[in-house]
Amino acid sequence: MTQAKPTHLASLPAATLHMIDILRKKRDGGTLDDREIGFVAAGAADESIPADQLAAWLMAAWLKGLSLDETRALTLAMRDSGEKFGENFWGAQLGKRAVDKHSTGGVGDKTSFLVAPLAAACGVAVPMISGRALGHTGGTLDKLEAIPGYRTALTLAEFEEVVRKCGASIVGQTPKLVPADRVLYSLRDRTATVESPGLICASILSKKLAAGLDGLVLDVKTGSGAFLRRMEDTEFLAALMVATAEAADTRTVALLTDMSQPLGRAAGNFIELVECVELLHGARPAYSEDVRELSLVLAGWMIHLGGKAGSPKAGYTLAEAALTDGAALARFFKMIDAQGGDVSVFDDPAFHKPGATTVVAAWDSGFVAEMDTRALGWAVQRTGAGREKAGEPVDPHAGILFHAKRGARVERGDPLATIYATTKAMLLEPSQLLTDAITISGACPETVPQVSRIFTRENAEKYLRNAVR
Amino acid sequence: MTQAKPTHLASLPAATLHMIDILRKKRDGGTLDDREIGFVAAGAADESIPADQLAAWLMAAWLKGLSLDETRALTLAMRDSGEKFGENFWGAQLGKRAVDKHSTGGVGDKTSFLVAPLAAACGVAVPMISGRALGHTGGTLDKLEAIPGYRTALTLAEFEEVVRKCGASIVGQTPKLVPADRVLYSLRDRTATVESPGLICASILSKKLAAGLDGLVLDVKTGSGAFLRRMEDTEFLAALMVATAEAADTRTVALLTDMSQPLGRAAGNFIELVECVELLHGARPAYSEDVRELSLVLAGWMIHLGGKAGSPKAGYTLAEAALTDGAALARFFKMIDAQGGDVSVFDDPAFHKPGATTVVAAWDSGFVAEMDTRALGWAVQRTGAGREKAGEPVDPHAGILFHAKRGARVERGDPLATIYATTKAMLLEPSQLLTDAITISGACPETVPQVSRIFTRENAEKYLRNAVR
Repeated sequence: MTQAKPTHLASLPAATLHMIDILRKKRDGGTLDDREIGFVAAGAADESIPADQLAAWLMAAWLKGLSLDETRALTLAMRDSGEKFGENFWGAQLGKRAVDKHSTGGVGDKTSFLVAPLAAACGVAVPMISGRALGHTGGTLDKLEAIPGYRTALTLAEFEEVVRKCGASIVGQTPKLVPADRVLYSLRDRTATVESPGLICASILSKKLAAGLDGLVLDVKTGSGAFLRRMEDTEFLAALMVATAEAADTRTVALLTDMSQPLGRAAGNFIELVECVELLHGARPAYSEDVRELSLVLAGWMIHLGGKAGSPKAGYTLAEAALTDGAALARFFKMIDAQGGDVSVFDDPAFHKPGATTVVAAWDSGFVAEMDTRALGWAVQRTGAGREKAGEPVDPHAGILFHAKRGARVERGDPLATIYATTKAMLLEPSQLLTDAITISGACPETVPQVSRIFTRENAEKYLRNAVR
Repeated sequence: MTQAKPTHLASLPAATLHMIDILRKKRDGGTLDDREIGFVAAGAADESIPADQLAAWLMAAWLKGLSLDETRALTLAMRDSGEKFGENFWGAQLGKRAVDKHSTGGVGDKTSFLVAPLAAACGVAVPMISGRALGHTGGTLDKLEAIPGYRTALTLAEFEEVVRKCGASIVGQTPKLVPADRVLYSLRDRTATVESPGLICASILSKKLAAGLDGLVLDVKTGSGAFLRRMEDTEFLAALMVATAEAADTRTVALLTDMSQPLGRAAGNFIELVECVELLHGARPAYSEDVRELSLVLAGWMIHLGGKAGSPKAGYTLAEAALTDGAALARFFKMIDAQGGDVSVFDDPAFHKPGATTVVAAWDSGFVAEMDTRALGWAVQRTGAGREKAGEPVDPHAGILFHAKRGARVERGDPLATIYATTKAMLLEPSQLLTDAITISGACPETVPQVSRIFTRENAEKYLRNAVR
């Protein structure tokens, strides 16, 4: 019979969570539990985990992926990392459902300025927390700040008040809202760990869900201007966001929409608002039909999820009425006014004063066949309208106005686009980028549908079950 | 005929290296060229690349691996990141070849204190730059600092002077030597990116090669106390280090040696030096035979690579003579004296004053069958002899003295080990860890050979060609 080993200590010290163990587990392909994910999010928010360890974790998560459960846990832990609106806040306060729209970003994507007033005019609360321009994509806040006086930095109490009064408010993230995302997003941007479905999903949804939403419409871009280049990655992200938000009890839909060319005819800051105001006046300018149609579809879904229409189609009809009768325009101007903006600039033709202007003419006759939307986004950025690094200023008057888009028949010498830049010297690079990005060909290109696929909870969960990642 | 696109700009701005691009390339499994690797090493050294980007790069390198070329480039760029001894420095100064020994670390591994004076006594210059205890492994510098007055922080000029006078010097890394490694090593330790063959190889070799070596003997540990747990990883690392150092024109050999039990009978700080001094006096204490034999083999290789013996076997014979006739002991004491250490402590039985002492007795009769060397290393650390985090102080008098090792026949109640701890309370955890780490069984365990495999340039390169990583 062998002898038992003696006991010197009742037990060794109890295990607590250490970032190094979490790093090792993720690096080795393990799945982190809710407690471990919560530790990372809380440590990012209060900066108790140093940036180097978070950066290494992000790279491991990028390379090894996050499971659906990890993504859900990260989304909720990030949402809860700072101040937020609780569940059913808007219902209790205003007796309305709160629905927001989020887009994965594009060039000339100005639908927020249309869907927010459209849904608000139809009785839905739209508490919209938006972002800024970076790289090839524009930013909702930068565009709104082209209006003199418009304040994007409201307190949550002021934000609530504007939503109460106008039905919609568009603001920036407060420093206290989802602090975990502020830290992680800035690190991802610096460490080549942006394009990860789980990390993108948690970043987007944590901010949106912190607004206490009942419903969320996701506009996931496809085509040459899409954030993710591969269609399967885009579909996966869309399905993942729907499944994750639904797991957090928010009714969510994702529409895969076309970004194979800029949306509408303007891409920049103030010139995009001008295009929206024209549409809200009921006008139908050339090359704005796509943004009008997409906005009505998105608003239709928002109105449906907001409980004001029995179907997205019925919501579309209500939205179109609000567009036609001026109700949405009134809401939009009321919101701008409530946030300190001077709406009279839209009546002042002298307000838009770009530093320099040029027209790029067609170098050949034929059809506009392809538009490399990502490259066009960089062209817009180089006019001064966007920024290369966070924190840089943007020029409210810079941007590009397109006079032809995919399928247009042009003759050599016809204007293709007008470029507005900060200085004369800054006209050259966008001109070259735009020229390189556009193909003129003898054949008319095929039409791309505006909405190619829709994910709701049922088919999103099915998609994810079948997706091999 | 189609029209050529017009040119607006002669060319877009030229590309320069950006860390974000290097991160993206490594993340996506690409191979970095010498310029890109040099950018990372230089940016680590002068801290122009922030820690978060380096941490993400380390995780990508850990997960995607480094090629042989990347490893060579990183080793050389790190070696050249600060002050160093140039090629043939020692030959020109002293008319001797400079040869060092490096071990991947173990428990009770005190061979440096034997091989340095042995090789020096046989006419080889040994400029040895060593490290500190961390985690389950001990540190050469901490052990030497158990000698009152011993200075490990010499300038390169002082270091050179001690090597000139004594044939050997053992010092710590200066702040200006291989600064890239200081930054990267500390990050790897914090971000779970230590155990990567390429990163380990570059870290070890950059420091060693900065000493201007002609030859290098690598002692790569195997068994339960090995740094890397899997034998194939250990072999790969050994072959990689040999091939990389040879590519940098340093004659290099790697010996895979047994660490399935602590080396020798002492593991700690001062008690390890005492064991070495006994061996250098020509004594043959029980359970010290393994460290004596391994030291002679390693020194034999050093003497051979140092041009003082035609074969490693002839080098062994010379080393054994220097051990027996007291020449090596004289060198060792001369070196300690030259670096300010008081050698009289080895003659003073009252010098070793541990805070608390206990004996762990055998709980059963039988053979000592298994020793979990890594766990025993942690037991030594918990006595106060080691450190959990860099920068913590160590207790020079703490440690564990083994009275039985693998294959020993013990009766219940026989002493297995004496534990020396800083305080009485600190005896408990090492006692428990040691008890858990040792298996007493009815069967005598098989003997493990001291040296299981040797890599020189030829078979190392062949091994790497055949290794699928």
